[in-house]
Amino acid sequence: MIRLWWSSRSPYVRIVTLALHELDCADAVTLCPVSVSQKTPQSNLALAGDNPMVSIPTIVFKDGQTLSESALICLALDRRFAPGRLVPLASAEMEATLARVATAKLMIDAMMQLRLYPGFRENDVEARIEGYRWKLERTLNHFETAAAPQQGGSADLGDLTLAAGLSYLDFRLPEIAWRTARPRLADRHAAFAARPSFQATEYVDG
Amino acid sequence: MIRLWWSSRSPYVRIVTLALHELDCADAVTLCPVSVSQKTPQSNLALAGDNPMVSIPTIVFKDGQTLSESALICLALDRRFAPGRLVPLASAEMEATLARVATAKLMIDAMMQLRLYPGFRENDVEARIEGYRWKLERTLNHFETAAAPQQGGSADLGDLTLAAGLSYLDFRLPEIAWRTARPRLADRHAAFAARPSFQATEYVDG
Repeated sequence: MIRLWWSSRSPYVRIVTLALHELDCADAVTLCPVSVSQKTPQSNLALAGDNPMVSIPTIVFKDGQTLSESALICLALDRRFAPGRLVPLASAEMEATLARVATAKLMIDAMMQLRLYPGFRENDVEARIEGYRWKLERTLNHFETAAAPQQGGSADLGDLTLAAGLSYLDFRLPEIAWRTARPRLADRHAAFAARPSFQATEYVDG
Repeated sequence: MIRLWWSSRSPYVRIVTLALHELDCADAVTLCPVSVSQKTPQSNLALAGDNPMVSIPTIVFKDGQTLSESALICLALDRRFAPGRLVPLASAEMEATLARVATAKLMIDAMMQLRLYPGFRENDVEARIEGYRWKLERTLNHFETAAAPQQGGSADLGDLTLAAGLSYLDFRLPEIAWRTARPRLADRHAAFAARPSFQATEYVDG
């Protein structure tokens, strides 16, 4: 059985549940209700075991593949269950669809901020910062212990995204000593940092 | 020439510039520097013309296709320039890569919040709310005037994402009367709301 970490209140989750129904595979999925708090992610250790960023939606396929982020989950579901029905296979049509996905998803991000901001209070912000720190540390640990997928000098989009993130820590949040106690991740990032693509795209302040 | 709305300081932009170099197509792209403020998105009207959410990265291809959101841009670049190099074509390998993309990208989101929160002050929050409202209104107008892509009763991932968003407005931000002066978008949403997938996934509070 496929498991989906789920809430009836999340627009990101709803994108995935809509996709499950449109792909006629909702019956193959068990919904696992969870209430996610930005302030206390450590209260969701079961979800954290499947997704160190403790976010929903998160899906766990029968073969063990775990995946988060609504658009990427839906792309995977489409290719597994009805290739091309929700995300066209031909490049031009695929791009037109992805363009609309991106704009609508960024719009939902704005809605979430509009919901969130009016309730901000000083100590609430502190609690949120603690929550984000906890998730960040846990996710860095995840990448330290996860099998390094880089083979034979190639780099995929996962490597690029991780490299952009780790370098941003050095650039903007240097107080987070992420290399300490993470020698494998540090080595892997150093190897990536030697690539011409990395050197051609350094962050520049100002 | 391809145009990329760009900043040297954004980790999301860097994912795309890394991809351009890894795909050996950086020379085909003109970087358009822009400084994006969450508080005054209206100061970036040129970018807003390409992307109503006024976010970077945003890419404009020679054929006019415009696309935002780093992972989706990179997927499009991969399929255009070197299919499978950054995002594998085979389903299982693709999913493993997308899983790492999602986790690393959610981690970057947390970093951005960690950067943002300590500087929050009351009037700063008000200005941010105004900025998000402006972008939201503009993006709703974009969907009102954009050609409806739905044909012959089918719905793609763009339709699903938009429907999840519009319904979330009704659910959580009912004060935003998005249907007013947007009859086409209202009709289109009403048609989508009649689908079994929509009815099976209604938001439930509590």
